[in-house]
Amino acid sequence: MAIVLGPNRYGKAEVRLVRVVRDGDTHSIADLNVGISLAGELQATHYAGDNGGVLPTDTMKNTVYAFAKEHGVGEPEEFALRLGRHFLATLGHVDTARITVEAYGWQRLGPHSFQREGSWTRTCTVTVADGGTQVVSGISGLVLLNSTASEFHGFIKDRYTTLPESHDRILATAVDARWRHLTPETDFAASFEGAREALIGAFVNTYSHSLQQTLYAMGTMVLTARPEIAEVRLVLPNKHHYLVDLAPFGLDNPNEVFNAGDRPYGLIEGTVTRDDAPPATAEWYL
Amino acid sequence: MAIVLGPNRYGKAEVRLVRVVRDGDTHSIADLNVGISLAGELQATHYAGDNGGVLPTDTMKNTVYAFAKEHGVGEPEEFALRLGRHFLATLGHVDTARITVEAYGWQRLGPHSFQREGSWTRTCTVTVADGGTQVVSGISGLVLLNSTASEFHGFIKDRYTTLPESHDRILATAVDARWRHLTPETDFAASFEGAREALIGAFVNTYSHSLQQTLYAMGTMVLTARPEIAEVRLVLPNKHHYLVDLAPFGLDNPNEVFNAGDRPYGLIEGTVTRDDAPPATAEWYL
Amino acid sequence: MAIVLGPNRYGKAEVRLVRVVRDGDTHSIADLNVGISLAGELQATHYAGDNGGVLPTDTMKNTVYAFAKEHGVGEPEEFALRLGRHFLATLGHVDTARITVEAYGWQRLGPHSFQREGSWTRTCTVTVADGGTQVVSGISGLVLLNSTASEFHGFIKDRYTTLPESHDRILATAVDARWRHLTPETDFAASFEGAREALIGAFVNTYSHSLQQTLYAMGTMVLTARPEIAEVRLVLPNKHHYLVDLAPFGLDNPNEVFNAGDRPYGLIEGTVTRDDAPPATAEWYL
Amino acid sequence: MAIVLGPNRYGKAEVRLVRVVRDGDTHSIADLNVGISLAGELQATHYAGDNGGVLPTDTMKNTVYAFAKEHGVGEPEEFALRLGRHFLATLGHVDTARITVEAYGWQRLGPHSFQREGSWTRTCTVTVADGGTQVVSGISGLVLLNSTASEFHGFIKDRYTTLPESHDRILATAVDARWRHLTPETDFAASFEGAREALIGAFVNTYSHSLQQTLYAMGTMVLTARPEIAEVRLVLPNKHHYLVDLAPFGLDNPNEVFNAGDRPYGLIEGTVTRDDAPPATAEWYL
Repeated sequence: MAIVLGPNRYGKAEVRLVRVVRDGDTHSIADLNVGISLAGELQATHYAGDNGGVLPTDTMKNTVYAFAKEHGVGEPEEFALRLGRHFLATLGHVDTARITVEAYGWQRLGPHSFQREGSWTRTCTVTVADGGTQVVSGISGLVLLNSTASEFHGFIKDRYTTLPESHDRILATAVDARWRHLTPETDFAASFEGAREALIGAFVNTYSHSLQQTLYAMGTMVLTARPEIAEVRLVLPNKHHYLVDLAPFGLDNPNEVFNAGDRPYGLIEGTVTRDDAPPATAEWYL
Repeated sequence: MAIVLGPNRYGKAEVRLVRVVRDGDTHSIADLNVGISLAGELQATHYAGDNGGVLPTDTMKNTVYAFAKEHGVGEPEEFALRLGRHFLATLGHVDTARITVEAYGWQRLGPHSFQREGSWTRTCTVTVADGGTQVVSGISGLVLLNSTASEFHGFIKDRYTTLPESHDRILATAVDARWRHLTPETDFAASFEGAREALIGAFVNTYSHSLQQTLYAMGTMVLTARPEIAEVRLVLPNKHHYLVDLAPFGLDNPNEVFNAGDRPYGLIEGTVTRDDAPPATAEWYL
Repeated sequence: MAIVLGPNRYGKAEVRLVRVVRDGDTHSIADLNVGISLAGELQATHYAGDNGGVLPTDTMKNTVYAFAKEHGVGEPEEFALRLGRHFLATLGHVDTARITVEAYGWQRLGPHSFQREGSWTRTCTVTVADGGTQVVSGISGLVLLNSTASEFHGFIKDRYTTLPESHDRILATAVDARWRHLTPETDFAASFEGAREALIGAFVNTYSHSLQQTLYAMGTMVLTARPEIAEVRLVLPNKHHYLVDLAPFGLDNPNEVFNAGDRPYGLIEGTVTRDDAPPATAEWYL
Repeated sequence: MAIVLGPNRYGKAEVRLVRVVRDGDTHSIADLNVGISLAGELQATHYAGDNGGVLPTDTMKNTVYAFAKEHGVGEPEEFALRLGRHFLATLGHVDTARITVEAYGWQRLGPHSFQREGSWTRTCTVTVADGGTQVVSGISGLVLLNSTASEFHGFIKDRYTTLPESHDRILATAVDARWRHLTPETDFAASFEGAREALIGAFVNTYSHSLQQTLYAMGTMVLTARPEIAEVRLVLPNKHHYLVDLAPFGLDNPNEVFNAGDRPYGLIEGTVTRDDAPPATAEWYL
């Protein structure tokens, strides 16, 4: 038996970049949080502290800023692709470059004035590897609520069941979704907007008997609306709203007054996919 | 010398309330985080564990939910006033009730569907006391950015100064503002919207030589626009955006590529007031 | 009526400093988060963007690092006093300098190796002003729990009361305490250790009929043990542990299985003071 | 082409459990955050909202509390194994139950008094599946720092490199480690203590030329010390401490004064494994 190095990678996390584009007096901004991770022939630094194959993570950070100037940012996926291809092309011993981006939205207030839109974050994870290039886009923290049109009954009962069946409840979640593109050549701006609208539309228009059903409807709507997307992964916390018992105070409560709970919460995770989608070329998680 | 009890209060913090109002098939929701704090003759529980004067904080929580059903919520200030007056009226030994509310915004997506707007939070602190009733409204987390129209120069230089003067910089902040109303009888919905618009308008339209100047402009605009407001307090972090030095890479950087820093940050705090405003009847802070 | 500037101050927040002291091969470290705030004649920058009286917050940051080298750090209060006196002495138009420090603990693992102790943070707020110098020390996040020896009954019942009386419950809190020193000349290391031990000792040894009673006991113990301290302020969240109803499963639950709740929580705030303590020379809050 | 359901699971997250064990007047406590996730034949609820195969997540929560009473808690891994086996045994259509636990440490202060130790968290992820039972234990948030005995040089230089080589720097990290056990029959208390000590010992005693080298040393030490462990995964942020340039103030800085940065940070991830370890039976990540 020997002790050996297994899978490994390294990089720089959370490089904060704000890029201003000046079109005369009218400015636009891109606000990103960029992560870079490289894998390949990196044994020497692990086994012996020999850094001959190590591009410093500080250099990765510098590259982010320099590329933002030289090439602009564009869509997050485009910026990530450019970075990933650079590292793979220039570092012969690196076989995989993974670039992640969180992009924060800003609403225009004036030619050079902006207000942060904080309700959700656009994300992407781009993997440029010897085995192929994979683009995963996504959204985090999209908080949605239906105040009715949600039921939950017909479930398994066992010794530990106390939950009553419900025929009218609040359904609320904070959508965390990722979708894998069929190719790295896509109109990523249109794709993101379309996917976001599909997620919201399905949540709003599905009469729900379980959050699982809503999840599947959301994934299906994305794939139906966006042919460039191969599959969708969703992680949906079930943000419980507990109906408050007002009977001790002589009051009824016909689904009007709720306690919004923190913990615990349900957690529903699922993938919706095309049955003819080519397999992923890199692992991807939420 | 004796050891004695000084100022004290107690209550329930962070009561999470979601109130659905059903107008046929069309619903609306109020989403609040409520805090209650009472002060008065409370020595016995401190000195001897005698709880004869203690209304349990659990009862305060119940009162929030019951009042939401019995009276509805309305504007956050109205809900807080109703709660505060109840506790002062029913507890003879309590001389001060302070109610705080954070109200979370939701955007309508359909008759009973909503999306959380996360970019800022509306707040209020209502103090109902023997000495008067005071209403303070506010906003937290309103993140604003000007990509130009901001300078900073002419400042003191000493042995420890290295900051160069700047004639064009990003100015960004997360507005935390509170404003004290002249009376508790106000159209709080209109007042909040007007104050928020004034804060944003002043930020956008002030050519800034310091964040202090912008702060004063914001406070002045609120008081000019809203006669019902006596004074405004602002806490403005100066969210530094550092121009990245791209010269080592043979690139210039004419205010295009920035590193958005986390810590440290400047912190500018100030009050803007009417010189004839009546004094506050209760302490208020940001 | 005119609109005028009221109370204001400005400064740098969250300057992160790690100072290594090398005694041969044996090192020690101080790990601080420092905030600086100045007040005085600062109207010109607010009214007209004239920064002639503004020491940049960047310079404040530099001063923290330079002083850490020139003078060392020592106890947090000593470092804060040195900084505050410097700003007041060198800036004639500044009448108040307030320095805050959070100090993070590290446990020694070897001559130059350390493990962070994350369970609580030591704090101080030093105010150097024309009217006097005030030192407030404190502790945040000291989480304590008694699994018995706590009761709560005999409280007010009204229409909204549902809480049953309890004769045996868990009492848990996260202590946030601040104490004002009589003078700025104190052995701050011994004082902090003594105050912390007093807080813990009183929590452990008080048979509690309310968290208010425990609060008063904790403050009294600090003042009894530490003659250099004038008064103590405590903010104690009542971290509720709810006894789980296991009856539906045919199980009793004699105070063994609890759900540790997040929100809401009780919040007990109080000051314990010497009746002959001189008044504070600067506002201080938790 | 059809749209179909891919991998999926559901469960309850963050069930907060405090279990008191009373041995006469001496109590002990277990403080856990438990997550449960089930996978199997769950298509009907996704496709049609048919919940006939859905055990409500509320029931999972109840089961946690009931099991804590009926069976006690013991080591986190033991509690997780008991829960996982229960769900797999009682739900014929479920093929995988994954139980995660975060366990919070408490230091004894008296027979029934405790202080939270917040510097790190013990974790486990237990997967009970038709294909085998897998136990992964771990630790999160173990913050370690060496104030010397760390170098970084000999690395790749390219157009974007500005980092100088260093022959003496601070090395600091927050260890996030997971280790897979060879079998589910282990003395988990001893194993955890041994693994933690091995991680710390390797960090302290490795003269580091890269954090990768330290990572590999830490993993190797765990496997050397603990024969019951098959492999170790480590995610080590490189918490940069930037030497402050004091030259503008006429001061040198021989590795004494540092700015502890937040973002960006390096992120080093790697697995250290026995070359004869049997393969994992379930996916496991950090």
